[in-house]
Amino acid sequence: MAKDRLRIIPLGGLGEIGKNMMVLEFDDQILVIDCGVMFPEEEMLGVDLVIPDITYLREHRDKILAILITHGHEDHIGALPFLLPELDVPVYCTKLTHGLISVKLKEHGLLESSELNIIAPGQPFKLGPFGVEAFRVNHSIPDAVGYAIRTPVGTVVHTGDFKFDHTPVDGLPADFARLAELGREGVLLLLSDSTYAEVPGYTPSELVVGRTLHHLMAEAPGRVIIATFASLISRIQQVIDASAKNQRRVFVFGRSMVDNVAMALELGYLSAPDGLLGRPDELRRMRPNQVSIITTGAQGEPTSALVRMANRDHRQVRIVPGDTVVLSSTPIPGNEALVYRTIDNLFKQGADVLHSKVAEVHVHGHAAQEELKLLLNLVTPKFFVPIHGEYRHLVAHTKLAASLGIGAERCFVLEDGNVLELGPTGGRVESRLPYGHVYVDGVGELAHVVLRDRKLLSLDGILVVIMAIDKQTGRLVTRPDIVSRGFIEARDGEPLLEETKDLVVKALEQTEKHSADWSFVQTQVRETLGRFLYERTRRRPMILPVAVEV
Amino acid sequence: MAKDRLRIIPLGGLGEIGKNMMVLEFDDQILVIDCGVMFPEEEMLGVDLVIPDITYLREHRDKILAILITHGHEDHIGALPFLLPELDVPVYCTKLTHGLISVKLKEHGLLESSELNIIAPGQPFKLGPFGVEAFRVNHSIPDAVGYAIRTPVGTVVHTGDFKFDHTPVDGLPADFARLAELGREGVLLLLSDSTYAEVPGYTPSELVVGRTLHHLMAEAPGRVIIATFASLISRIQQVIDASAKNQRRVFVFGRSMVDNVAMALELGYLSAPDGLLGRPDELRRMRPNQVSIITTGAQGEPTSALVRMANRDHRQVRIVPGDTVVLSSTPIPGNEALVYRTIDNLFKQGADVLHSKVAEVHVHGHAAQEELKLLLNLVTPKFFVPIHGEYRHLVAHTKLAASLGIGAERCFVLEDGNVLELGPTGGRVESRLPYGHVYVDGVGELAHVVLRDRKLLSLDGILVVIMAIDKQTGRLVTRPDIVSRGFIEARDGEPLLEETKDLVVKALEQTEKHSADWSFVQTQVRETLGRFLYERTRRRPMILPVAVEV
Repeated sequence: MAKDRLRIIPLGGLGEIGKNMMVLEFDDQILVIDCGVMFPEEEMLGVDLVIPDITYLREHRDKILAILITHGHEDHIGALPFLLPELDVPVYCTKLTHGLISVKLKEHGLLESSELNIIAPGQPFKLGPFGVEAFRVNHSIPDAVGYAIRTPVGTVVHTGDFKFDHTPVDGLPADFARLAELGREGVLLLLSDSTYAEVPGYTPSELVVGRTLHHLMAEAPGRVIIATFASLISRIQQVIDASAKNQRRVFVFGRSMVDNVAMALELGYLSAPDGLLGRPDELRRMRPNQVSIITTGAQGEPTSALVRMANRDHRQVRIVPGDTVVLSSTPIPGNEALVYRTIDNLFKQGADVLHSKVAEVHVHGHAAQEELKLLLNLVTPKFFVPIHGEYRHLVAHTKLAASLGIGAERCFVLEDGNVLELGPTGGRVESRLPYGHVYVDGVGELAHVVLRDRKLLSLDGILVVIMAIDKQTGRLVTRPDIVSRGFIEARDGEPLLEETKDLVVKALEQTEKHSADWSFVQTQVRETLGRFLYERTRRRPMILPVAVEV
Repeated sequence: MAKDRLRIIPLGGLGEIGKNMMVLEFDDQILVIDCGVMFPEEEMLGVDLVIPDITYLREHRDKILAILITHGHEDHIGALPFLLPELDVPVYCTKLTHGLISVKLKEHGLLESSELNIIAPGQPFKLGPFGVEAFRVNHSIPDAVGYAIRTPVGTVVHTGDFKFDHTPVDGLPADFARLAELGREGVLLLLSDSTYAEVPGYTPSELVVGRTLHHLMAEAPGRVIIATFASLISRIQQVIDASAKNQRRVFVFGRSMVDNVAMALELGYLSAPDGLLGRPDELRRMRPNQVSIITTGAQGEPTSALVRMANRDHRQVRIVPGDTVVLSSTPIPGNEALVYRTIDNLFKQGADVLHSKVAEVHVHGHAAQEELKLLLNLVTPKFFVPIHGEYRHLVAHTKLAASLGIGAERCFVLEDGNVLELGPTGGRVESRLPYGHVYVDGVGELAHVVLRDRKLLSLDGILVVIMAIDKQTGRLVTRPDIVSRGFIEARDGEPLLEETKDLVVKALEQTEKHSADWSFVQTQVRETLGRFLYERTRRRPMILPVAVEV
């Protein structure tokens, strides 16, 4: 590799390129940006989390200078407990992000052994050959930043997840001036959030949600119950503000919501008038129209507080007619069924339910087309790499860039594991790391073959054929036994399974001569039964022949 | 049950109330409206179709007069092949619907034995105590109707799936005049489509899509490939019309698309200028900008023509830069991942891809709020039952009715299996049928226990423990064997599985005295291993102990 070139490598993100992790390399020194997890797609059966494959980083462990974190969402910090023990490098982040990471590392018993550094936007620091400076952006969590990274080849700007909000809840708009200055000084490469590159116009301000909540609390006849993400600190602040204006006290339910509210209050990222927040045991004594409730469960998570309320299974809150429930969120793809089942159950108990399809109770955290164009025109980069989005979002983002005169020759659409080598006058995708995702379930990594088997098992079940075979003669000692699960109902299946046993007996008689060759017998049994069962049931269970030699 | 009352029973629909089937009963005589299937939700592993539970109809088989069909979509006709052999009653439907049903029954060898009657809108006929008349509505398929059914208690109006389109492709708007007349004569009960009751405004006309397609074909540099539902006959007509205007010949791919186009041309529901439709083998000789392609695969179905094109796996069509691909559809919830993966793959091969999120290339087939209100004001029913929607849609629909003065006392929100008994002055939900869905996979019905096992298998896999046991002593003859699938990778799992075998040996030694009691041994092995494996792996595979007595 040429020594005077930057290397840019997006890692992780389940098809959302560079979402969880981005590697920036110069002269054998490495900066990592973000370290997050993805939640599995439906077809990844029994997988709890998906983390980036860090084979490359593991091999170059001693060259990594630091991990820079853009903000405190799971898809940007969630893999730290898995990867920090292996990589053991310092982490840099803003104050609230530091709070959220600390909670997480403490849970995993890793807080003591990790080096976490709090940084502030606008205060540059050096890391090897890199001059690093965070700049403030808006997102659906406070204290979100992007990074400007000065390298010997030129300046790289990484936006993180961002939108432009002129009236954010914390009063701190994105730092337009700094972005413009960086642009004037000259930016070699812009890496910019593409999540909403297909959406025209501007993303509405959080202010819109605040107004809706205020009107709603003024008019609701009874309690107002608001479900949102525990990390959506600004949304929680808006609920507190609207409640205070409408003489409602606020009660918080759901473990992660309670934890995050406590942490954010302590760090000063949330504020509430004295006495506004109530203890659960005070709830009974309140008149319904004096109550707001903040809770987890906006994604219909089966064990969340809201879902328990919807199923009459929550100890402290029972839904009654007159309650107004607000889902301040949009369903993450794949969660729709859970979310809508929860809404239906709430309606059935007499609550009125508002969600983002029917009322302005949610805005998302990513820049739409006009904001993306504004950013491109502020930063005026020489080269452009769209990140944080699926392939079609990246393509849509390059079309926006093209409309501003940044043509295809200055854009690089990468995929996870691609290595872009970039010099002052141009670059190209030089290679692709051997790259896969790492699946985590409970405590361990999951192999692909295990996932594939789960998929197969889930389709038509399994059929275990147990054969007691004489060690000497290689012949069946007794009639084979068959146990099946997820294939056919026991009652209906009995005659079919008896026929299947006959077939096994016959198959083994025919293969007598090869009986020493167990793998041949296995294949024979599998194929014979597979054909027979498919003919009779149109199902293809996994067939598992096992032999006991006696 | 009072003899002077109507009974209304919605059946089927997987939570979309009355979507697949509606039962109307008077004086022990039954009319059935629609007979459709639902496609399974993701969690229904290996299920191909879900059909209504007709236990009730089976028990009252001799009282059923007919099945009336509203239109030819799968969720309204798809269960006929499963239920007609059992119920053996005449079916009434319009001409195109008749064509679609015939194709389906022929496939199942049922066409000869079924009585299908073609009816025309506006021509009343008698069925026992019922006077039946179909009226024309608009939907995303031609020849869609609703039914006005005169009963001794009063007139019942059932809309079917509908929208109001003033400029439909077939030139036949919904019959507003007939609906108004019915309203003036007096309607006892309206059953109306609620699918889009949450959506404000009007559903755009198909005309909008026609305009988009025309502009797109005029401007596209190469081929235009349009994927849509095979049953969306009007959309196909629009592609033909836009192609003709732009001197492009039309090529049709995908089995169901080819079949439906042939049938619709024959019945006169599609028309094309001579020579416009091309044979696949002519495609090679055409210049790219003289070609339109219509194909299946708009939902990312894995074996569809479009998906094969996207994966370079289609024999006749290979995607090249310059191709414009249009997905004229919206992803059905649950299909998003498949659809977006297809789009990404098309982009990666250099095509430009348009879908409903970024261009006006699709309109849906259901009435939005303003249309629903118009219908309510035309029909002015005494009582109202919202149908065809999940519970929250029905609630939203009653809110619309309330805004027109049809208060809660005149609305009944039902669930599948509910029995509404309605007289001239009022009604109530009297009972609920024992009711479940019926799952179909391949050729047979699926028991719930089978589904539950598939779910369990899919989460953490399976562990089969094979024990050869001496018939006389009840002791292990050899060391137990263990086979696992979907649980742990063979390579990593070896030592763990050896430990597990030790545990089995120990467990069997301890239970020696009870060894005759196989179910006790099973439970013992299951519990011991379950605890041990969960401790060591945090996974809970299904544990299946099997014994071979020798």
